[in-house]
Amino acid sequence: MASEADLLLALRMATAAGEAIRPLFRSGIGIEDKDDSTPVTVADRGAEMAMRHLIASAFPDDGIIGEEFGAERTDSKRIWILDPIDGTSSFIAGRPTFGTLIALVQDGWPVLGVIDQPISGERWVGRVGEPTLFNGEGARTRPCATLAQMVMATTSPHQFDADQSEHFMALARKVAHRRIIYGGDCYNYGLLASGHIDLVVEAGLAVHDYAALVPVVEGAGGLICDWNGDPLNAQSDGTVIALGDPARLDDVLEAMGGHDH
Amino acid sequence: MASEADLLLALRMATAAGEAIRPLFRSGIGIEDKDDSTPVTVADRGAEMAMRHLIASAFPDDGIIGEEFGAERTDSKRIWILDPIDGTSSFIAGRPTFGTLIALVQDGWPVLGVIDQPISGERWVGRVGEPTLFNGEGARTRPCATLAQMVMATTSPHQFDADQSEHFMALARKVAHRRIIYGGDCYNYGLLASGHIDLVVEAGLAVHDYAALVPVVEGAGGLICDWNGDPLNAQSDGTVIALGDPARLDDVLEAMGGHDH
Repeated sequence: MASEADLLLALRMATAAGEAIRPLFRSGIGIEDKDDSTPVTVADRGAEMAMRHLIASAFPDDGIIGEEFGAERTDSKRIWILDPIDGTSSFIAGRPTFGTLIALVQDGWPVLGVIDQPISGERWVGRVGEPTLFNGEGARTRPCATLAQMVMATTSPHQFDADQSEHFMALARKVAHRRIIYGGDCYNYGLLASGHIDLVVEAGLAVHDYAALVPVVEGAGGLICDWNGDPLNAQSDGTVIALGDPARLDDVLEAMGGHDH
Repeated sequence: MASEADLLLALRMATAAGEAIRPLFRSGIGIEDKDDSTPVTVADRGAEMAMRHLIASAFPDDGIIGEEFGAERTDSKRIWILDPIDGTSSFIAGRPTFGTLIALVQDGWPVLGVIDQPISGERWVGRVGEPTLFNGEGARTRPCATLAQMVMATTSPHQFDADQSEHFMALARKVAHRRIIYGGDCYNYGLLASGHIDLVVEAGLAVHDYAALVPVVEGAGGLICDWNGDPLNAQSDGTVIALGDPARLDDVLEAMGGHDH
């Protein structure tokens, strides 16, 4: 379980990350891949550094895994997993649908997750045993009776390998095309927790991409798992299904035509 | 040329459309395709009706082509082309990247275009002979030296037929994958006008999807054309290339490997 102190720390971390990111959003003219001082790199590093400082001063024994500065004290029972800017390409393109992801993992299980969008000021907070909050108000996923009625989201077709693409397209054929929405990264999982999106299907995610999503989705009444229907953990293969209505899991797995790794 | 009175009318129309749309954003629980009173349908119709009333009272002789209520007085020399919600699937999914599109076409040529995002409060206004404005400030596209450096956007891979998909993928292979961003509809063209996106490539667009984009992109220093490199008009085939740096057009057409209809 995550304590009140853990929650308050996570909220302060999200706020600090946002303060590092906001001034750099839409500030870049001519972003160079190889230049280490691009706005996105500076924002990424500044946000992660700010979050690491807050963890170190509150809980110096906690472990940290961050997208930018790697891992430290990973033998700790408590590990913070940080992705300062999930949705780098959205950030680069000036689209406010990226997010800062913060997870607290205890004994291998994510007990606290934050998805924070610092431009629009939208924040989802999930904590095991508590209802997920969107900007302080309870968030709930919605029921959905059939695949055909689902609003489905995925970030990019390029995240799938050839085999995964076949499974994804088999599913997409069961969903109305005008209800499949691309782009969005972590923001899609927040919208699922709030009952606007019914299904997110992705692949190629790293643990810092999905750890924070688990408490947010589950605390809102949804289900999140890999493409075999198994729970996500640090050893997961990077495939993710998030469902607003857990009763539709078998329909989704069946439509994807089986999957094995 | 669009007059000051035309511009003021277009701005009032965008504001009225936003007032009709905002209360319905994220209001829908369980959206049914066949139900004519879905939030998106109500928002679409309410916004278009509000805009039509404003046109009728200011310029009763002007023609109108709207996505929801069809065409009237299309023999007029001045025709307003309206898409109250471009990006229906974004609206449905609760993502604030859809937009209201307003164009004034004179003698077949779009002389005024508005892209309005009513949730984030972002508005691009293009007028032939004037610099494009973003929320009242001048907007400029940015130069981009090579395809590999481009940030490229497209709404969905499902908009392409098999032949178009091959041309698009040939282009996508020349662009860094993490710089290709999906989703976004008209919002991408606004971000291109503001110098955050370098290239938008789409297909299957209707005249109400692209008429407003032309003055916005061109007035910001960009180029917009079909996949043959020809200017867009009411008879265009629905393929669109928008470029922040017009000097890259030959590179883009070459990378797409030729195109003919």
